[in-house]
Amino acid sequence: MAITRRTRHDIRQPYLIGGYPVTKSEQVVLLRRPDGALRPDDFRHEEIDLPPIGRDQFLVRNEYLSLDAGFRKWMSAGTSDGYLQEMPLGKAVQSIVLGQVIESLNPRYPVGAWIMGRAAWERYSIVDGSDLMTILEVDAALPIYEYLATLGTAGLTAYFGLFKIGLPKRGDVLLVSAAGGGVGSLVGQLGKLMGCTTIGISSTEEKCRWLMDELHYDHTINYRLEAPVAQQIRDLAPEGIDIFFDNVGGDLLDQALECLAMNARIVLCGAVSQYEKTGPHTGITNLWQLVTQRARAEGFMFSDYVEEFPQAIGKLSQWIKEGTLHGPVEITQGIENTAEAFCRMLAGKTRGKCLVKV
Amino acid sequence: MAITRRTRHDIRQPYLIGGYPVTKSEQVVLLRRPDGALRPDDFRHEEIDLPPIGRDQFLVRNEYLSLDAGFRKWMSAGTSDGYLQEMPLGKAVQSIVLGQVIESLNPRYPVGAWIMGRAAWERYSIVDGSDLMTILEVDAALPIYEYLATLGTAGLTAYFGLFKIGLPKRGDVLLVSAAGGGVGSLVGQLGKLMGCTTIGISSTEEKCRWLMDELHYDHTINYRLEAPVAQQIRDLAPEGIDIFFDNVGGDLLDQALECLAMNARIVLCGAVSQYEKTGPHTGITNLWQLVTQRARAEGFMFSDYVEEFPQAIGKLSQWIKEGTLHGPVEITQGIENTAEAFCRMLAGKTRGKCLVKV
Repeated sequence: MAITRRTRHDIRQPYLIGGYPVTKSEQVVLLRRPDGALRPDDFRHEEIDLPPIGRDQFLVRNEYLSLDAGFRKWMSAGTSDGYLQEMPLGKAVQSIVLGQVIESLNPRYPVGAWIMGRAAWERYSIVDGSDLMTILEVDAALPIYEYLATLGTAGLTAYFGLFKIGLPKRGDVLLVSAAGGGVGSLVGQLGKLMGCTTIGISSTEEKCRWLMDELHYDHTINYRLEAPVAQQIRDLAPEGIDIFFDNVGGDLLDQALECLAMNARIVLCGAVSQYEKTGPHTGITNLWQLVTQRARAEGFMFSDYVEEFPQAIGKLSQWIKEGTLHGPVEITQGIENTAEAFCRMLAGKTRGKCLVKV
Repeated sequence: MAITRRTRHDIRQPYLIGGYPVTKSEQVVLLRRPDGALRPDDFRHEEIDLPPIGRDQFLVRNEYLSLDAGFRKWMSAGTSDGYLQEMPLGKAVQSIVLGQVIESLNPRYPVGAWIMGRAAWERYSIVDGSDLMTILEVDAALPIYEYLATLGTAGLTAYFGLFKIGLPKRGDVLLVSAAGGGVGSLVGQLGKLMGCTTIGISSTEEKCRWLMDELHYDHTINYRLEAPVAQQIRDLAPEGIDIFFDNVGGDLLDQALECLAMNARIVLCGAVSQYEKTGPHTGITNLWQLVTQRARAEGFMFSDYVEEFPQAIGKLSQWIKEGTLHGPVEITQGIENTAEAFCRMLAGKTRGKCLVKV
């Protein structure tokens, strides 16, 4: 679709996109604080007027919204921290988005540029670049949504978590929780590329089969089976796990702590088991194992490595093109279905990276 | 005291020490598994016959026994781990000791050598060197017990924990729990040497004053005050703590996790609050703070760095002689008083490094 290019002095409403005037946007707002498990009616999809952009701002037409379990946390009250503020009620839900600049009063973000960054569940975003992380150099050989999936939040989280914190070596045993999720589905494959033996934890027998067949995990654990997870881990890795890439937290983390090899690294990536909890997180009782095993637990955020995004995206692209890395995606059509898709994902009913095609 | 030197073919009982025959030793054994807080009558001091040494063995006359809170853990049932086995009942309690070789069938440990290593609460140890960590090059300018204190378990634990895991930088805020203990009393001073602002946590107002007056802590926190420790930390360090050197674990660790600066390092050294617990450790609910603060918790054992002992001991000796490092010690006289001294230490009633002069 052609995009009308206008000068700095020509910004006015209505915006013209492909020659058509656009005065309205859509957004999905947080209606109330969820009480335990999130429900689609905690949100509202609504149409709003699109205001003009101001100084240094630019207008992005979002193509895809990223669904990231981690954002669930900030929907609850009192969750402001070093990364995000508690999400306000009645406002569009914060999210990572992928879109194209279609109007700009900011010379660093010219019309036509593809950007990936922090905005919200909305059709159009008006931003000033302070929350935007990167202008993409789009490779036409790849579907654009990959920049929000294997080359986006999921891929960069898997990449930096594994390589900066996990420090994989050939022969290491790598355990991954939520192994079929957006991040986990990539961590297992990256671990295999590094010569690790991989064990994926998931919630159904069917998903476990998929982990082995499609994502090439060496072994899987169904955490809903009767046998305790710690016992299942010990059966598969009697000498302990060298790396635990944890997306789940809570009791699963506590059990994995019982099974560490010497000098193990725990990559603290997510705690999806805890986001829906009201009250304090599940108490971790086995932290002392970090001492007896001289092991390390470390948190990170992919966004801390923004300077290294180009290099990481380059490597991940190369692996995709070589066919050695395949990031499964589950794309929901229509912004109006965003809340439901997010709830399905948190309930563990999805596979791979979840996106919404606006 | 002169030590009779004999050849390999001359080993027989009685051993002659200073010309006098020695046929008996003394030891302190674990009589029963403690139930909660340790009591002196969980142990028994007893006289035993001293057997002859066998092939590759040597006889050490222990001068000092080190009291280390960490060993409390292995007195309980089911505590075998990557570091030590559960201590057997009726046997001398395992401990780090300092002594001199007085008979030897092991050429690597000649008569007269001073050794520091793992043995037990006993007057004489018969060992083969496999558990002995180091032969000391004794500096006559320092009291010999320093090799079990500031140059021994306490100093090496403080040194490797702080420098290998804590990674102090000028201007860092360093929080230390059990700040007046054998390790903590040194960590604070080493932190000051590195240009850190130091905060020591202790259990009484009197001890807190001592921390400031004698150990040069910049600030102190009495964890028994009504104000929550997290609030006290925030008042002293509104921008958070960069390093937490933790000897206590449990609730104190959980509260400190709420007060981390970005990229903080938690040195997991001890968990004295947990050793006396029956059942699981206190659940840590704030581990997620490691993610939001991109922080790290890591365990270690000083004994992992045995190759670097000479260098560490050299530096620590230099600081002692320069008068910039002062390791307080509390020496109990007589092996028969070992159990009582150990219980006093675990109850938080001692100051600095606790030793027993055999």
